[in-house]
Amino acid sequence: MTKRDPFRPVDAEARALARDLINGATYAALAVLEGGQPTVTRVAFATTPNGAPLSLISDLSSHTAALHANPTCSLLVGEPADKGDPLTHPRITLQAKARFIARDSAEHPSLRAHYLSLRPKAKLYIDFGDFRLVRFDIHTALLNGGFGKAYKLMPDDLAAKAGQ
Amino acid sequence: MTKRDPFRPVDAEARALARDLINGATYAALAVLEGGQPTVTRVAFATTPNGAPLSLISDLSSHTAALHANPTCSLLVGEPADKGDPLTHPRITLQAKARFIARDSAEHPSLRAHYLSLRPKAKLYIDFGDFRLVRFDIHTALLNGGFGKAYKLMPDDLAAKAGQ
Repeated sequence: MTKRDPFRPVDAEARALARDLINGATYAALAVLEGGQPTVTRVAFATTPNGAPLSLISDLSSHTAALHANPTCSLLVGEPADKGDPLTHPRITLQAKARFIARDSAEHPSLRAHYLSLRPKAKLYIDFGDFRLVRFDIHTALLNGGFGKAYKLMPDDLAAKAGQ
Repeated sequence: MTKRDPFRPVDAEARALARDLINGATYAALAVLEGGQPTVTRVAFATTPNGAPLSLISDLSSHTAALHANPTCSLLVGEPADKGDPLTHPRITLQAKARFIARDSAEHPSLRAHYLSLRPKAKLYIDFGDFRLVRFDIHTALLNGGFGKAYKLMPDDLAAKAGQ
């Protein structure tokens, strides 16, 4: 018995939808490994100037320790509207590696300023000692545009448009 | 340096909030292990008559194959309202093991009927050959009621009220 390939060919519409889901998200479900087990929690979500996922997480959260131990993770973004079947709403799973942005690194000041330009309320806690900026380098993504509309995307498919 | 315990003592309010989040969810973020890596996708979500998480998933989805290979998983439920900071909205992470409900098992007919009573639109596909009911046996749960309000709950804390 052959299994049908569940993925459609990636086209411009799929790429645009993926980019819209990533650009429009303010939070994500983050899956990490904790003691060898998958665990999923909610985290803040924004993007770097290059369109890569960017978050601000606390050392008091178990996912932060988990990412320090093993940066391999997965993010789900794309939230359903209030009405209709939530499974018909598009969403995207990003397979990624987390990279913490050290406070004394060259890139920290500009990423901090960029994050605050997108999420001004975070100025209340972004400088707390236990909060860290973390970016996510995506290696593959699974876009689900609703029942039967699945696409597997690569980093080039997710490149932010110039000027965004 | 000692790290502060991030969890508050579990009380009746925390138990009620946890139960409300589980009972009110129509979808969840499901984290599974795929090839040793965490992956998070969206799944339908309902509950059994006893209040355990119950979903209906397709063999065409990668999470289904992953759960067959390793039933250890994690579910996140509790969706933000449209307004306000999404990280102040309560949510709960359920650490669980998935258990597929075989179509020829004694419990399948009643769980199928119960699922359809909660999610009547699923009658369009619940009997498709590639769809399976799966229940989740919870071993621990992490309730986050907003910044600084975290609780670790055990199965007894999540027991459904009689008559629900």
